[in-house]
Amino acid sequence: MSKVPTAPLVSPLAATLTRLLGPRKVLSSLSERLNYRYDAIAFGETPLCVVLPESTADVVVAVKAARAAGVPIVGRGAASGLSGGAAPTEPGLVISFTRMTRLSINAVKREATAQAGVITLAVTEAAKPFGLIYPPDPASFRTSTIGGNLAENAGGPLCFKYGVTGDYVQGLEFVDADGEVHALTRDAYDLAGLLIGSEGTLGLITEARLRLTSPPKFTRTLMAHFAEVGACAEAVSAAIAAGAVPSKLEFMDRACTNAIEDYLHLGLPREAEAVLLVDTDGDDLETVEEERALVEAACRNAGGTVRRAESDAEAAQLWQARRSVSPALGRIRPQRMNEDIVVPRSVLSEVVREIRALGDASGLHLVQFGHIGDGNLHPNILFDPRTESLEAVHELAHEVARVALRHGGVLSGEHGIGSMKLAFMREAVDGGTLAALWRVKHALDPHGALNPGKVLPQELA
Amino acid sequence: MSKVPTAPLVSPLAATLTRLLGPRKVLSSLSERLNYRYDAIAFGETPLCVVLPESTADVVVAVKAARAAGVPIVGRGAASGLSGGAAPTEPGLVISFTRMTRLSINAVKREATAQAGVITLAVTEAAKPFGLIYPPDPASFRTSTIGGNLAENAGGPLCFKYGVTGDYVQGLEFVDADGEVHALTRDAYDLAGLLIGSEGTLGLITEARLRLTSPPKFTRTLMAHFAEVGACAEAVSAAIAAGAVPSKLEFMDRACTNAIEDYLHLGLPREAEAVLLVDTDGDDLETVEEERALVEAACRNAGGTVRRAESDAEAAQLWQARRSVSPALGRIRPQRMNEDIVVPRSVLSEVVREIRALGDASGLHLVQFGHIGDGNLHPNILFDPRTESLEAVHELAHEVARVALRHGGVLSGEHGIGSMKLAFMREAVDGGTLAALWRVKHALDPHGALNPGKVLPQELA
Repeated sequence: MSKVPTAPLVSPLAATLTRLLGPRKVLSSLSERLNYRYDAIAFGETPLCVVLPESTADVVVAVKAARAAGVPIVGRGAASGLSGGAAPTEPGLVISFTRMTRLSINAVKREATAQAGVITLAVTEAAKPFGLIYPPDPASFRTSTIGGNLAENAGGPLCFKYGVTGDYVQGLEFVDADGEVHALTRDAYDLAGLLIGSEGTLGLITEARLRLTSPPKFTRTLMAHFAEVGACAEAVSAAIAAGAVPSKLEFMDRACTNAIEDYLHLGLPREAEAVLLVDTDGDDLETVEEERALVEAACRNAGGTVRRAESDAEAAQLWQARRSVSPALGRIRPQRMNEDIVVPRSVLSEVVREIRALGDASGLHLVQFGHIGDGNLHPNILFDPRTESLEAVHELAHEVARVALRHGGVLSGEHGIGSMKLAFMREAVDGGTLAALWRVKHALDPHGALNPGKVLPQELA
Repeated sequence: MSKVPTAPLVSPLAATLTRLLGPRKVLSSLSERLNYRYDAIAFGETPLCVVLPESTADVVVAVKAARAAGVPIVGRGAASGLSGGAAPTEPGLVISFTRMTRLSINAVKREATAQAGVITLAVTEAAKPFGLIYPPDPASFRTSTIGGNLAENAGGPLCFKYGVTGDYVQGLEFVDADGEVHALTRDAYDLAGLLIGSEGTLGLITEARLRLTSPPKFTRTLMAHFAEVGACAEAVSAAIAAGAVPSKLEFMDRACTNAIEDYLHLGLPREAEAVLLVDTDGDDLETVEEERALVEAACRNAGGTVRRAESDAEAAQLWQARRSVSPALGRIRPQRMNEDIVVPRSVLSEVVREIRALGDASGLHLVQFGHIGDGNLHPNILFDPRTESLEAVHELAHEVARVALRHGGVLSGEHGIGSMKLAFMREAVDGGTLAALWRVKHALDPHGALNPGKVLPQELA
């Protein structure tokens, strides 16, 4: 059996980088490179070469070699992203940061210094002996990396109360499109803030100094369920208006709850149109209990049925439902399109209903869940690419995005724009602002070498 | 008595703007314009024309007219800035935002929407009936505006625990160098974050949506004094390492304390080399008291003498000392150069001692105070321009900046770079990063129309 390769097995770039960095840091065979074309939601082009740098100096070498070869450069963490941010749109160099895992804690400065490849969870684990935590908690925190979190400015359930990744960055180091290294603090022009969330299109973040905080002393949990989605949204708004600032406020619709129940048999209310999971936390138990009571009263006033967790074990069991959403949905269809819209809480009930109606009309399997506290919803379209039309999936996704924009919402709460939501950006951002963003892009990456095809749609002529 | 004017009394730009906006919104006479050439620290060039816009549409008209006339544009709030950010370096248009004072509170969204001219204090005053506060507290908060705070990314005593102005911005509106209006949220490329702290050099912020929070239920105060500055710095580091997160941590050196004592006769310890004022706050009185006890123990271990405030009235009296620094220093010399360095807490005692020695050797009057929790020191050089050499003042200021940089510090904690610290930027930022910042500046303000001569020193050839 013989195969005629359509391209040289080892690209000239891979040969150069192998010479410069040694074979241990370079993946050049097709079978290895194939693994680096996707993230958790999108497939992209197979890279010509993959570099596994062990230091910022290695990144510099890789960037300079790719620029000399005239190929694009895509940074990559754990590839758990949900917008296609790390999936290359053109064949080029992928820089995978998974070996850059140096991490140190400075308890006096309440600061962690983490290289890009450090797993998110490792930061909190390392901080714990000093009585400190790192609050940002994307659902992927057991696998995702700090570099990936920074590139997408990742959020999670705690971000309603505690803020997103960028809120914890004191400074960072990045390698620019020319392979120059820059160390940034967050003063004068906040170039660090600009890089955070830019998905590797303006520079490659190699290290960050992260602010740590003290964990709350007490946490209280409740679950509520509602016969109607609007009632759930109203309960949340009423609780917040009454002064509650829950640390987590998670919503799941009926389709989502039933998917989890089919999977785990936790005894969730299958008939409820909306299930709400709420944590309140703080250092004063009385205040924490008071806040939970405010949420409970708001839920009951809105017609909800409330269950308080009476122990940490019961709270953990309730939260197991929310944590199991991804595997539960994976059992229904092999693939999913995971949206990340944010809408004003005041229109949440209308938005959820409109999206439900779109899903029902489409004949596709659509579920909704999300961080309802800040109006961040994840409508998910579940599909089997072998039997269902990708065009229909994309059309439905686009319709869902339009619902968000029509109600004054935005397209990305915490997953980034990536390639997945690129087409919608033209509707979300006015032409003049898009032109301003392109001017910034050209200023820092004049040759378009960094992660092309992400975040910014091409300008209209 | 007659005077021959050397230039037309009303510039063509002023005539155009009077026609477009009406005479009520335009100041064109020399006596009026003279008032708009300075901020609280620096004198600049007299503007050709001053516009007092009442809406974003007025700002657009003014920017387009200035661009057509080919003159630079400088935005201005209350001119309480301490880095020369609002003082024009060339004759041009000044846009004074003091009439853009629309302010609304959305209690459900825990958000204030404020036009650029809203006084900082007014935000918290308007939020109070809803049980909310706006934490950023620059010393000037009774006079400074939100627009000015955003332009300089202002901080204050509370920023050690609660963050600076930019941490509270959910979205903003700005007018760009071409007079186009953009509405930004904080996703994709965080252009809003880039504008914050850019001192009007990238765009003119006209309105912002600001996050509000619940106030802490309890606050406790203590004052400590030390025979030696290093002991004070060590006490602060030890308290923080032990787990205390004070909401305010203010330091004053002996010269500063004596200036206040001469002014107000509060009974401050005149012989102490360092006085420390500390607040702890939170919702759990026990925790708040515990944190104060941690600070107290750390102060005593470091050889300090501690006084606890036993009532709110006593706390207010202790804080009166700190709030009186500016008027107290004004009695010693009519002018002062107020620096704003930030150094790692670990080197604070060395830095304070080195700066003290520089002050003593110079023969000029130098005092030091600041937000010691995050290492933000304000060495102030007090001088009388009629009798003391400005060159000597600038030389001393430069030496002080060099001490900060040599110890791994930065030049601006909360006042901005402005024109005052421009010359030092070349030492603070490496050439490659400065070039990257200039590329961003050129991308958004290609003709250099916006607040020229601020933040970024000219690139080296």
